This record gives sequence, structure tokens and C-alpha cells, in this order.
Amino acid sequence: MDRKLVYRFAQERAEGRAEWRALLGGKGANLAEMANMGIPVPPGFTISTEACVDYLKDGKLKRGLMPAVRASLGWLEELTGKGFGDAANPLLVSVRSGAQRSMPGMMDTILNLGLNDATVVGLAHKSKSERFAWDAYRRLLTMFGDVVLGIDHQLFERTLHEARRELALKQGLHLPGDLETLARLIPDSVLEAEQLRRVVEQQRLLLDSSEGKFPTDPYEQLEAAIEAVFQSWNNPRARLYRRMHDIPDEWGTAVNIQAMVFGNLGETSATGVAFTRDPSTGERMFFGEWLPNAQGEDVVAGIRTPRPLTSGAGPAGESLEELMPENFRELFEIQHKLEAHFRDMQDLEFTIEAGTLYLLQTRNGKRSARASVKIAVDMVHEGLLHQDEAILRVEPERLEELLFPAIDPKAQVKPIARGIPASPGAVSGKAVFNADDAESLAKTGEPVILMRAETSPEDLHGMKAAKGIVTARGGATSHAAVVARGMGRPCVAGCSQLTVESDRGRAHVLGPDGRELATIDQGSVVTIDGFSGALFLGEVPTVTASLSAETEELLGWTRQVQRMRVRANADTKAQAEQALEFGADGIGLCRTEHMFFDEERILAVREMILAKDAESRARAVNKLLPYQTADFIELFRVMAGKPVNIRLLDPPLHEFLPRERAQIDELAHGLGVTALDLERKVAELSEFNPMLGHRGVRLAISYPELPRMQVRAILSAACTVAKEGLVVKPEIMVPLVFDLGELNAMHAITEQVAAEVFEEQGQQVHYKFGTMIELPRAALMAHELAKQAEFFSFGTNDLTQTTLGVSRDDSGGFLPQYVERHILPEDPFVSIDKNGVGELVRIAVEKARVTRTDISLGLCGEHGGEPRSIEFCEQIGLNYVSCSPFRIPIARVAAAQAALRRTRRYWH
Amino acid sequence: MDRKLVYRFAQERAEGRAEWRALLGGKGANLAEMANMGIPVPPGFTISTEACVDYLKDGKLKRGLMPAVRASLGWLEELTGKGFGDAANPLLVSVRSGAQRSMPGMMDTILNLGLNDATVVGLAHKSKSERFAWDAYRRLLTMFGDVVLGIDHQLFERTLHEARRELALKQGLHLPGDLETLARLIPDSVLEAEQLRRVVEQQRLLLDSSEGKFPTDPYEQLEAAIEAVFQSWNNPRARLYRRMHDIPDEWGTAVNIQAMVFGNLGETSATGVAFTRDPSTGERMFFGEWLPNAQGEDVVAGIRTPRPLTSGAGPAGESLEELMPENFRELFEIQHKLEAHFRDMQDLEFTIEAGTLYLLQTRNGKRSARASVKIAVDMVHEGLLHQDEAILRVEPERLEELLFPAIDPKAQVKPIARGIPASPGAVSGKAVFNADDAESLAKTGEPVILMRAETSPEDLHGMKAAKGIVTARGGATSHAAVVARGMGRPCVAGCSQLTVESDRGRAHVLGPDGRELATIDQGSVVTIDGFSGALFLGEVPTVTASLSAETEELLGWTRQVQRMRVRANADTKAQAEQALEFGADGIGLCRTEHMFFDEERILAVREMILAKDAESRARAVNKLLPYQTADFIELFRVMAGKPVNIRLLDPPLHEFLPRERAQIDELAHGLGVTALDLERKVAELSEFNPMLGHRGVRLAISYPELPRMQVRAILSAACTVAKEGLVVKPEIMVPLVFDLGELNAMHAITEQVAAEVFEEQGQQVHYKFGTMIELPRAALMAHELAKQAEFFSFGTNDLTQTTLGVSRDDSGGFLPQYVERHILPEDPFVSIDKNGVGELVRIAVEKARVTRTDISLGLCGEHGGEPRSIEFCEQIGLNYVSCSPFRIPIARVAAAQAALRRTRRYWH
Repeated sequence: MDRKLVYRFAQERAEGRAEWRALLGGKGANLAEMANMGIPVPPGFTISTEACVDYLKDGKLKRGLMPAVRASLGWLEELTGKGFGDAANPLLVSVRSGAQRSMPGMMDTILNLGLNDATVVGLAHKSKSERFAWDAYRRLLTMFGDVVLGIDHQLFERTLHEARRELALKQGLHLPGDLETLARLIPDSVLEAEQLRRVVEQQRLLLDSSEGKFPTDPYEQLEAAIEAVFQSWNNPRARLYRRMHDIPDEWGTAVNIQAMVFGNLGETSATGVAFTRDPSTGERMFFGEWLPNAQGEDVVAGIRTPRPLTSGAGPAGESLEELMPENFRELFEIQHKLEAHFRDMQDLEFTIEAGTLYLLQTRNGKRSARASVKIAVDMVHEGLLHQDEAILRVEPERLEELLFPAIDPKAQVKPIARGIPASPGAVSGKAVFNADDAESLAKTGEPVILMRAETSPEDLHGMKAAKGIVTARGGATSHAAVVARGMGRPCVAGCSQLTVESDRGRAHVLGPDGRELATIDQGSVVTIDGFSGALFLGEVPTVTASLSAETEELLGWTRQVQRMRVRANADTKAQAEQALEFGADGIGLCRTEHMFFDEERILAVREMILAKDAESRARAVNKLLPYQTADFIELFRVMAGKPVNIRLLDPPLHEFLPRERAQIDELAHGLGVTALDLERKVAELSEFNPMLGHRGVRLAISYPELPRMQVRAILSAACTVAKEGLVVKPEIMVPLVFDLGELNAMHAITEQVAAEVFEEQGQQVHYKFGTMIELPRAALMAHELAKQAEFFSFGTNDLTQTTLGVSRDDSGGFLPQYVERHILPEDPFVSIDKNGVGELVRIAVEKARVTRTDISLGLCGEHGGEPRSIEFCEQIGLNYVSCSPFRIPIARVAAAQAALRRTRRYWH
Repeated sequence: MDRKLVYRFAQERAEGRAEWRALLGGKGANLAEMANMGIPVPPGFTISTEACVDYLKDGKLKRGLMPAVRASLGWLEELTGKGFGDAANPLLVSVRSGAQRSMPGMMDTILNLGLNDATVVGLAHKSKSERFAWDAYRRLLTMFGDVVLGIDHQLFERTLHEARRELALKQGLHLPGDLETLARLIPDSVLEAEQLRRVVEQQRLLLDSSEGKFPTDPYEQLEAAIEAVFQSWNNPRARLYRRMHDIPDEWGTAVNIQAMVFGNLGETSATGVAFTRDPSTGERMFFGEWLPNAQGEDVVAGIRTPRPLTSGAGPAGESLEELMPENFRELFEIQHKLEAHFRDMQDLEFTIEAGTLYLLQTRNGKRSARASVKIAVDMVHEGLLHQDEAILRVEPERLEELLFPAIDPKAQVKPIARGIPASPGAVSGKAVFNADDAESLAKTGEPVILMRAETSPEDLHGMKAAKGIVTARGGATSHAAVVARGMGRPCVAGCSQLTVESDRGRAHVLGPDGRELATIDQGSVVTIDGFSGALFLGEVPTVTASLSAETEELLGWTRQVQRMRVRANADTKAQAEQALEFGADGIGLCRTEHMFFDEERILAVREMILAKDAESRARAVNKLLPYQTADFIELFRVMAGKPVNIRLLDPPLHEFLPRERAQIDELAHGLGVTALDLERKVAELSEFNPMLGHRGVRLAISYPELPRMQVRAILSAACTVAKEGLVVKPEIMVPLVFDLGELNAMHAITEQVAAEVFEEQGQQVHYKFGTMIELPRAALMAHELAKQAEFFSFGTNDLTQTTLGVSRDDSGGFLPQYVERHILPEDPFVSIDKNGVGELVRIAVEKARVTRTDISLGLCGEHGGEPRSIEFCEQIGLNYVSCSPFRIPIARVAAAQAALRRTRRYWH
């Protein structure tokens, strides 16, 4: 038997149900569900998404579809007592798309189907309003022309403008210069029947002169409309929306065909939208807008100002509650019933036709991040949800919005350029183009935005001084992005329209055609939005937020269901404190190199690099010892009782040397060497592919003085803090390892230094020794490495770079295209590449546990704060993830959700 | 029971045998074997390598060892009728090292053990020569002082010089200024007994004033000597030798203790060395040198000129054959017997003591590459070896010596610097420091050596013009090395002592202390040795060679046992012809980018890069079409009947753009764009890590015009050649793939272009479509990629870079140290890293064959010409390897050996 393609619904008898969203789309499934609940909905039927999928595959409607549609129309005629195409008593229907997940405004809708030159007369007669009938017809023609025939919407508007102009002249009004003001002056509702008839006439001419033609046969109209809605699944904006919201192209849309009801049949008619709670704040209050004598689109269009639903929410006497108390009471009960039934905040559309209330749609309402948390938590208190369900209700990624200032949604502004949203938050400040300027300007108290072609560790002091960072190159895991996130600074990276001329103190913004749109001079005020990647000229108002009581409560619940711990990537005391505030279980990655860039230290670092032998190198390195020790003492104190994972020096040495002429001269002078010698050293250390160069453990092997000093600093600090009576849990982590031999060498140094320090201090501390897994070979050799390592931390940033052979800093030229063309499902630097990188992690986990069953396994790449990656970590059984302090709330919710899903206590 | 530590041997009764090399060392095992064969050897015994391993582990001799030695000494006393330490009739013994594999000169030897102030008198009496006895004693003291007590050898020499000076004065000779001339003037043999006695006296004083002391007890002498030989296993030169020859540190050395026989007991005594065949040419002729009345060391020392063994090989009346015909005949028979027994060319040492011949040693003789092939092939014809054994006898790596000129071994020269031997062959020429100069100077007919800091594709024309290439940076798989090997140009890479100042037209050679050793100006003549990595000032004579008839015969035999095919990496007709000459089974890698650099083409390439839209890009690309087509027609003709694998464009586009100011200006002018625009483009295309950047299939995805043009060129050329009646087997290979999506996109283009071309040409050709596997993710996704790919070619150069996270161009700073410190067993760019890279290849092979059982699997990295990597390829079942044309003979022999070993028909 062929599969059923059409599912009918009418009050208290529907063939579908809410759970069949995949088949009927969200709208169709919920219409069926409402009907079954006894809620008044205009009767109709839903064509399944399967029919759409078939249509898109075959390029034509499935053979059995139109017969089934005709049969259902017959049923609808019977139910309504009207006839489709019946000139005397015409049945009109709406045709609406409805996908499994809501894609508001993305696909097409046609209303008033069934009208033609004959039935319009019948409608006028039945509705007792010629004006209404011609208006309905004109709306059908506009939508049909636009949606089915692809005729420019503006052409239809023009016919309407003619009518408006005529009316304005007739009423002796001054004609405004632009059409929009005219439209505002003369709303459609004042156009007279005759004018509308003429508009229809003109629009018919327009349609018939196009390639297609307006079919007068209602069945032909319907078939064309169904095809158009199916096709609209693949229109560009729908495709883009799906990509942005991770909706598979394979789903297709359902089509809902429903008897029309009219909110514009006079003063006992109305239409409106409502939310069961406030979608901005999440507060529990019935909330919505309505218009008397109007169609739904009038509410949305913004030409007439909608009125509040409830009394007290606006001027007296305007609310539905006051003007149509009966209908309001019915609606209020329905909203309550729907919310309790769907156990979520609902977004409703209703129409009152001549005193009778119809619900046109209910769906889970979109809401702000703040509201989503409040509603979930409130619903737990109301007994509607279990705590675990509440956790699953929150989109973890969106919690970020609660932690950073955002562009004021009311601001009417247009960005001058867009880059990659690299670190969240919105901020304004004066543009500067190098780190020193950032620092000196910031010292005067000015908010500063640092704009660079790209950043390097040399820019750190400038990034610290700046309120926000913009780079022309690099992606979401570039140096700028990683550091900015760690510091909690908003950042827009890879803004390729920008050309930064740091030596000239200005930047150019180019348009897509390569022409210059603007020049940003040093000191010009700009605003950046790290949520969207937008760059604005001038100051744009922002709104700030902080963790709400409900968020704190929800986060408290996550702790009871999380299996994985959540640690922070934190290098400084301030970051560690921030991390603790957000509930970090420890530090998963402390990058010691950031400590090397401080002004007082960098000279010693450079001395070390330029040392001619091991002895003078050791002397220079040891100048750093007191600084490093002091750093770690601070960290251990803040993190008392919690593990602190410290990574030994990782970046190549050339990152610590200056690159520009003037700086080289200055440094040479300071160190008492010739500029030529220094230049030679810089050249000697420069690398073709620094990512794959002399860094990580390779440095430690070449210059054992370095790890020796660092281990001494870590363990001395640990002993000091232990003597204060605090519990210290240091973890010493070796970076960029690919062979056990490297770990053996580092372990020998560690053990030797530990013995010395413990002897000197008369104090023992327990420490762990382990390694990053950030190269494919390390993953493949995990069984070997686990012989020496008590823990692994997967560095999936570098592991992604090497596994895919993609430099994150150079990927801007092709990776976006890969995602767009679906060669990769998503940016592997944003969400872990499960097939490649994930497979290596999985192999490593398996091999490591064979050698050492109790090995501690974590992940400290950028993926550690990304929900889908966290879910993957849960699935393969890691012990913890580690992320930027500001992503900890996200990671905690994501870890809790992942644990719930894995154990299938609640399937989402 | 404890393991036996001491194994005795005497004529016709030995406890050991030749097969026990691991236990007794090569020398001990062969002494035992000779004894068992009835060949006269001085009796003695061997202390096993196990005793050495224990000693090195425990730091002291195993408890049971010295008792066993004493027992065997007792046996030896009985056998010889002499007493160890017996003043009347002393037994003297030699103590010699002997490892499982010969390490000539690397470890220590002590002769004449058993002498002291008492036994020396007995020896004088028994030998009827005081002179002989004191000479023997003085030799013992020198060796004991040097080997056991670590006293500077020069101090002993000085005592001897005193004696020489005295004798010279006494004979009224003029004293020469330097000691060496004095030693040559007054050979030891003319020193008188009394003088030698006084030398001994002085040497005794020297020894006794040192920290140790000369033990007069012979047993103490012996114990100390055994320990010293054990310890010599770990002396620096032995360690270095082992690393160079892949001998495990764990083996340890055996110690051979043998009754002394003396070739210096008068005119019926003699000593000599012999080869059963000529070790230089391999010719079958008994060959050797001897000295009458001499110790073995005198033959080697070069103070007396040794005489030929056979008559006719030197001045009449000097040969052993003429002077001691009986002993010669016996020796001749023994050498024949030994060679037949060991079935290999033997290197013998013999001594004739008072008319009695003793064999002191036999071992497989070292030989030149040429000789090794000739001997192996001759022995097959002589019925001594099976063909398969002959194949296993050749060291494949050494075949290289047959193909390239080498430094004349007779040249007495010292290199000024050393780098990495990157492409074999020795050559002299005038130094130049940039590609243009190389080209213009070469045009005048001068041989040119191009010296660069590093090379890039821009240098190609200069590399082509040059006779040899030197770089200061980069390793054995750097651009310079890869290209040089492909071209068959000698190359020394990564010569870090060199600083090339190409703009000033000179290079500096620095010593290890950083001081300048020499300056090489443009036009100075230098010589490079790509076999050893040496750089010489001035011209050094070289010798050339070519494939011998025997080599051809041997290579013919490999074909019958190889399972894997051997293809060539060849980009040009000339390379393809060279490859065919060496027996290539096809082309495994044709790099199309090399075709882009030709002067006529590069402009079109640059036009393409600078194109502002797809249309003008396609126009520029299509200018290349006729060139590419012509290239491929040539290749297909040459390789008719054999597969030709063509890789689509791989390198990042910036490699095709100029970098220097003047060239940019020139190009901008040529293309009619502004220099600023061009500079911007260069900057835009520059990458942080080009290795991981916008290259390979990523370019083809971004600019589909490129693969479209290349596929068109390949298939048009194939059709053209097919129409000529030749068989063409094109294979289209996509580089740098990591996902099936990329392959799908390329396959669609390929199919579409193929349909067009076949239609246009009215000719079909069969082609294969496949991919490189050169990224870890590609290996992990092999099951997916095999859905679209009919073949895989493992690009293990890039796969090594990404799997280990090591840029081959930047590895000079740490990789050598890794190998030296045994963190890695060997340079992973030279021999495949089986644990990491090899594991990925293994995974990919397994996964690929699940999807497509008949998938063709090859390897085309540099490893394709390296014997151990080839063995690995055989083990995991690849279908072919591909390497530089000049390595094909090596690869063929290696592939044949690997197949023989895998099937264990002959275990080597």
C-alpha cells in the first residue's frame, strides 16, 4: 500500500498528533494536536513532508497526491458547508509551509485560495462586504504572483499606490514625496471597494502578461501553490537558515491547507499573536498583541500599531480583554491549557471571525537566552518539568549572551563590515593599530579597540589594554580569538574587508567590489559585536547582563547529573577567579608562555634565546624562576583543593623576538649585541611552518634548562602553598609530544627537580605528570605514552590542524566554502570533526586505558567549550573538558545534557 | 645451571660454530668454524657476548667468568705445552674484541699478554731472540697502557723516539726535524735489544706513575684486558659506528683469547691479509699483501710497504708465492675452501710462525658496491648461490654508488663543511648564489654549483642549469633535495655552517665555534659530495660509473621475485626515459606544477592567479591548456603500455608569484596592473603555514577552472596518443584530500570533462580516478574515499609532516638530536616511521580494501625508494612503490628482497 500523504484535522478529530512533527511539520502536528485537544482550529489537512521529499527528488508531484488532496477538500467542503470554486458560497483556503523545525518567514504562504472573478462576487455577497471580497482577492493575487509566478513584489505595490494616490487626491490631501509615507498615510483598510476592484483588474493584467498566468480554476491554483511551497524549501534564504540552524536539507516541508477564517470581517473580528510568557524576560505573564478588523499579516507588517491583549498593558480601553472579554477569556484558558499540554512557553496565532475564536497556530516560542533559563527553572518550580528536562531545555551556546554586553536590539544600525564572531560581547572604543598605542591610550582612560592585520604574542599587552580586538586575518581559533576569549575581550577576527596599515595609523574598509567604503583613522570611534562579527563606525548602544538567580539555580542542578568535570583554561589569577565564580572544577590548561611576555620578563626570555651556551642560557632562564614561582603561588592559592594543570613552554622561540627594525635595534642595544647578530638569530629561528616547527617538547629537549626552571617553579610554588595549609594539586603537562622517548626525557628531569625541591623545602607535594595529545602520532602511540603519563589532555586545536592538514590561520581562503558546499558538515575548529579528529581521540582513549586503566583524560582545545564537541567527549568517556572561563557555564550545561542523553534518562 | 660463558676452539675441535655469531661474535664464531673445518688456527677460547651484556649491566664481571677463563687457560697450557706466567716457557695470548657484526677498528685489542719482567727472559730464551722478546714486551706495554689504563699513546711513542734518536746518532745520521720522518727512517725492526729493553724500562715507569699500574701477574693482566674490551663496546667511536650502521647497543661484544703466534720470529715467519676476490672490482682472483718477519699491525701501519701475495702482481721475487711456495699453496687451498664453505668472499688474516701457517681470522669481506653485485652474480654462475640468495646479498642502498660519479677515493682532501647528503653524486663547479646567475653562467658552458639558503620552485630554472645544489637550510626531503633527486643532480642540503648572502654574491663558512673558516665568492670553484654531504673548496677529482652487465643481470632476476611493482616519480620526458632505462613499471607520480614554471607558461599562471573573476581566470588557465596537453602527449608516448599517474596541481598559488621588489615591479608592468595591487595579492596569498594552507584539492575546489583544464589536457593527450595506436593508461590523482566530498566534486568535473573530450575527439580512453593519501584524516576516512577512488597513492612525505607535526624544512633544529638521542630510531623523512605514519597507512589499507577489494595501492613519497620503507610496503601488501628515476634499481632490489623475506624463501 502506498504511504498516506494527507492527514486531516478538525476540532476533536485529527488524524495526526504532536509527536509526528517529522511527518507533518511542527505547524501541522500542533494543529492536529490542538484539534484533538478540543481547541477551535479552522479545519484543514496537512500534506506530509514525505510528499515534499518525493517532489524535490522527482521534480513532480507524486501521482496519488492530488487525488488525495481533492478527497480531503471534499471532506472540508462538507464540514464547512461551502464549495471550493462555488461562486455562490465559496470555500477559501490558506496554503502554508511547515517544517519539522520552525523556520519563521523562510518559506512561502498563500492565503485566500479559491477566489477568482466568479467566487469573489459570492464572497462579497456572503460577507456582505464588497470591499472585503476585493481586498481578499487582491491579497491572493499579490501572494500568488510573488510566490508562484515569481513576479517582483514591487509591481503589485505600485498598483496599490495608484489607488492610494487617487484616494489622497480625492480627499484633498497633500501628496507626500515617497511611497512609504503614502502607505502609512493611507492604510489599505481605507481603500474603497471600487478602488480595490480596479487594483485587482490591474494586477490580473500584470499576472497574465507574465510568463505564467493566474489560473482561475481553484484546483489549478491549489496545485500550483502546493508546488510553490515545496519549492520554497530550497529557496536561498531557507537554505541559509537551515545551514545556520543545523537543519538537514533532507527533511523537506509539510503543506498545511486550511479553511480561511477572517479577522477583517468587521468590528467583531480581530486577529493577534500571543506568548504564554514574556519571551524577553521569561516572566510568567500572558502577553501579546492584536488588531481589530484585520488580517494576521497586518499585525506583523507594522503599518497599524497593534494593541496589547491584556488590560493595564497599554492605554485603557484598547485591550482585547476589555473590548472582547468573552473571546479574551476563552483565549486565556486556551493558552494556559496549551502551555500545560506542551509543557513549554507557546507562541500562538489567533483570529476572531465574527465573534468566533480560532487558533491558527501554536508552537514553542522563541525566547531570549535569559528567558529560556527563567522559563525552564520556573517550570520546574511549577511542577511542569523535571530538573533534568529543564537542563535539556536550555541551548547551552546561548548562555554566552548572559555573560557579555550585547548591541542594544533597539539600535537601528548597519555594520560597515563583517568578520568572524571570535569572542563574544559588544563594545565601543577608539581605534588603534598597534599594541603600544593601545596601551598608552588606554592609560589615559580611553576605551580602545585594537585593530591588527593579525595578532601575535607580542601584542598581548595591547590586547590586555584594549576593550576589544579586530583582526583582518585569522579565524575563530586564531591567536587573537583564543587570547581574546581567554581574557573575556570581545573580538571580531578575520574581517577580510579590512586592510590595516599599522605603520600609517589607519585602516581601510573595502566593499565586496574592492572599492573603499571607509577609512578608519587612529582615534576614530568604532563598535564591534563579537556575537555577530559586525564592525560599526561610531558608538552603538549596548546592553549588559549578568548571571541571573535562575541561571545559578540551573547550573546548580547540572552538577548532579554531569559525569564529566569542567575545568578552565586560565593563565592568570584573575582568570582563575573568574573561572571559579562560574563553577570550574580546576584548571585544565595554564599556558605558561603568556607569563613570559610581561615587560620585566621578556628581556630575560630574549637573553635566554640569544645565549651562546647552556650555561649562560641557564643563567638567563633562572632570572625567570622567581616570576614563574610567584605566578604559580597565586594560582595554587586561588585554586586550593582543585587540580591545576600547567603546560610547559609551547610556542617557538621566534615568537619572543621582535620583528621590526626599530625594536631589533633597541633590543640589540639593551642586550649588548650587534643588530646584525640579533637579525641573524631572528632569521635563524624563523620557520616555514612554525606550527610544525621547533616548539613544545622539542624546545625542552633542546634546552633542558627551560623545563628544569619551569618544573622547579611549579613545585616550589606548590610546596609554599602546601605549607600554608592549603591543598595543592599540580599537574605538569608536556606539549607537542609524539613519542615515549620525549616523555621519558621530561619525566627524568621532573623527578630529579622534584627530589631537589622537596629536599630544599622540607616539604613533599603530590603532583601528576602527563602530556598533551595534539599530534596524530601521539594519539596512535597512546598505549606507549600512557606508560609514563598519568593524564592526557587532548589539544584538539592542533590535532585538528595536523589531522586535516589545515592551518587555522590560513583556512579563511577555503574552509568557509567547504562548510557552505557541505564538504564538511561544519567548521572543524568550531565543533570537533568526529570522523577524523574524533576517531584519533577515540583510538587514543582506547589504547591509553589498556596501558593504564585509571588514566585521567581531558580535552583542552577550543572544542572544550562547544556543546556538540562536549557531547562527543561524553560519548567516548573523557573525564573532563577544559575551556575559557567565560564558556564554563555553557560547558557545564552541555556536559549535563550530554550525560542525560547518553544515559537516555531524557531523550532530547 | 648457569649459562656457559666460555667456548674453546682448537684445530678440529671447537665448541662453537659459524651460526653462533650472536653469542660468539663474528670473529669467534668463524674461528670455531675454521677449527672445525680442520684449518690451522692458534688455539684459544671465546668469552660470549652475554658475559659482556651482563658486565655492562652490572658494572662488574659475572661471578663464574674468571674461573671459567682460568680453566680454559689451563686447557690452553696443556695444548701448547707452555705455561701462562711460566718464566721458563711462557704462554702468551692475544685478547681481541669481536661483535656479532664486524666493527673494524672500533674496539680494542691487546697482544702478548702474559709477559712481565720474568717471562720476557723466558721468551727471549725460547725464541732465541732477546730483541724479539723486548719488542713483544714493549708492544704489550703500549697497548695495555693505551687500552686498559687510558694513557696517551703519544707518551709511549716518545720513549720509542728516544731510542730511535739514539740509534740515529750512533749511526751518524742527520736527525730529521719531525718525529714521523724519524720513525720512517728508523723502523722498529732495526732497534736493538738493549734499546728496546730501555724503552720497556721507561714505559714501565710511565705506567707505574699513572693512576693504574701495570700488573705483573698475567692473570691480573688478563682480567683487566677483558674488562677493557667489554668497556670498549661503549667508547664514543664504537657508539657512532653502531648508529651509522644500525647495530643495536644491546648486542655487546665477545672477547677472543688466543695463543699468540708470531710472524716476526725471523725469515721463515711472516704475516699478511688476503681477499678471496678483488674487493674493489669483485673479480675472482686471490688477492692480498704480506710482510716477512713482521707482526700483523706492521702490515696495516703502512711504515713498511707490504708485498703482493701472488707472483706477477708486483716486482719479481717479492711474492709469498715465490718466497714461501709451500705456505702459499696451503693458504691458497684454505682460501678456496673457506670461500666455498662460507659461500661469500672472505677477508683473511694469517701468520706464518717459523714455517707454520696459522689463520687468525676469516670474515665476509667488505667490498665496493660494484664488487658486491659482481661477486653475487658470479657466484650464481659458479653454482655457489641461488639467484634469490644473490639478490639478498646486495645492499640496495649502495647501488646508488653505481649510478653517480663519486669523489675519487685516492684524493687526499678534507671538506670545509658538511651538510645532509640529499641527492647522490659528486661534482665540481663555480659557485653562484641565485637561480638567474646559475642559468646565465651555465649558458656560457661553465659548470655551476647553485648555493642557496633554501630553494623554492622559483629556483627551478637555476637548479636545472646547475650541476649541483647546496642549501644552508632544509633536510633530506626539503624542496632542494626532492627536486635535485628527481633531476639526478647531486645535492648537499641543510649545510648549517653556511651563511648564504645571495644579494652580496657570497657565502660564509663558519666553524663550530662560529668563527669564519672561509668565504666563498661568486665564481669560486667548489666540489660537493652528495653521498657524504661534504663541501670542498676547489676542484676534487671524481670517478664515474655506469650500470655493469652484472647489475643488469641481477636486476633481471628481481623481476621474477618482486610482488610489488616499482614506478617512477617523473615529470618530464627525459625523466620518464631515464626511469624506463632503469626498468620502471610506470609513472607513479607526475607533478604537474613543475610544468607551470617554464618561462612561457609562468605568465599565464600569474594571470590566472591575479584574475578578478572566474571568467578571466578561465581565460588565463586555458592559455596553459596547449602546453599541458603537449607535455602529457610526450609522457604517454614514452610510457606507452604503462600506467602514468598524474597529480593535479598541488602547491599554494603564492609559490608562483615573485617575492622580490624588482620582480614584482616587472610582473606588474607585464600584466598591466599596479605594483600595489600585485603586492596586495602577494600579501593576501601569503600564509603562516603554507604546508597546511590553501593548496591541493582545496585550490581545485576554489578554482574549478584549474582541474577542468588539467583533466582536459590529460584526456586530450591520451586520446591523441591512443589514436596513434599506442596503449595509454592515464591515472588522474587528486592531492591533499581529506574527505569524500572533495573527491565527489573532482570526480564530477572529471566525468563531465571526459565526456566532452571523448565526444570531441571521437575517441574513448580508459582512465583511473584516485587520490593521494597524505593527511591523517584521509587515512582514517579511507573506507569513505575508496567509494570514489580506484587507487590510493600514499604521499608519505606530507603524511609524515602532519602525523608527527614536523615541517621537514624546519626540522633541522631538533630532528638530528632526536635521532642521536634515540628518541626516534631514525629520521622519519628518510625511512618510514612504522609506528605512527606506518600505522595510519596500515589502517587505510585495511579500511580501503573493505570498501573496494581491488583498489590499487601505491606509495609515492620519498620513502618509495628507501629499502626499509619498501620492506614495510611489502609487509602491508601495497601494490607498488614509486620513487625518483635514479633510485629505481635500488627499489627493485629492495622490493625483491622484501618479497623473499616475507615469503621466507630465504631468510637473510
